[in-house]
Amino acid sequence: MDCIFCKIVSGEIPAVKVYEDDGFLAFMDIGPVNKGHVLVIPKRHAATFLDLSEEEAAELFRRVNRIAKAVKEALGADGLNIINNVGDASGQEVFHVHVHIIPRFYDDGMKFGWRKLQYEGDEIREYAERIKSRL
Amino acid sequence: MDCIFCKIVSGEIPAVKVYEDDGFLAFMDIGPVNKGHVLVIPKRHAATFLDLSEEEAAELFRRVNRIAKAVKEALGADGLNIINNVGDASGQEVFHVHVHIIPRFYDDGMKFGWRKLQYEGDEIREYAERIKSRL
Repeated sequence: MDCIFCKIVSGEIPAVKVYEDDGFLAFMDIGPVNKGHVLVIPKRHAATFLDLSEEEAAELFRRVNRIAKAVKEALGADGLNIINNVGDASGQEVFHVHVHIIPRFYDDGMKFGWRKLQYEGDEIREYAERIKSRL
Repeated sequence: MDCIFCKIVSGEIPAVKVYEDDGFLAFMDIGPVNKGHVLVIPKRHAATFLDLSEEEAAELFRRVNRIAKAVKEALGADGLNIINNVGDASGQEVFHVHVHIIPRFYDDGMKFGWRKLQYEGDEIREYAERIKSRL
């Protein structure tokens, strides 16, 4: 398997680790949005968060919660962005599930280009019905 | 408690819901990044993801995983951004924990302004040590 994160798990490629247990690993992103940016991954290869079972997702974010608290405290960050990208259309670059923990500071100059669209008429209910039909 | 999401939980303020169980609720964001954008929240009030226990975080993302799969399938999305913002420095606007599930499409014109900084010398290890000291 030619997966860079699997190679980090196996030790074939080095990484600066901050946390490790039997199923999960956290290490420093080498191209951080802000310094202190950490990635949390399951050791088992899965391409995206949607390829995890609900149980695996829960266990992954149990670690993310713990590590996020440590990142914020350790760096005295003003906030965090906790982000998982699914698919290249979303910005995912490495196809082994990873959660970004990004420390944020009021003066960091980082702007995520958030936008707010508007629904027309009954559209919002139509979208909700489509989603509910898959749940 | 003057919290808009607590009022959605109690029914005092309406929302277009897509999922609900004893502890969690998912509803449509009324100012979506893309149409179909869903918010998942714990019913218990907590300001940020860091105010949740590891167990609550796990249970929240068990639901996020399930609902994210439904959003992607229902809307035929090319990808998703799954985002939790901690603190106003990160863009958090409502101080009741919420996870954004944002459907993404190749042609949606949305650009998150991701950037990649570089570490100098041994800096990456120093950051890692600081984080590890809190874990």
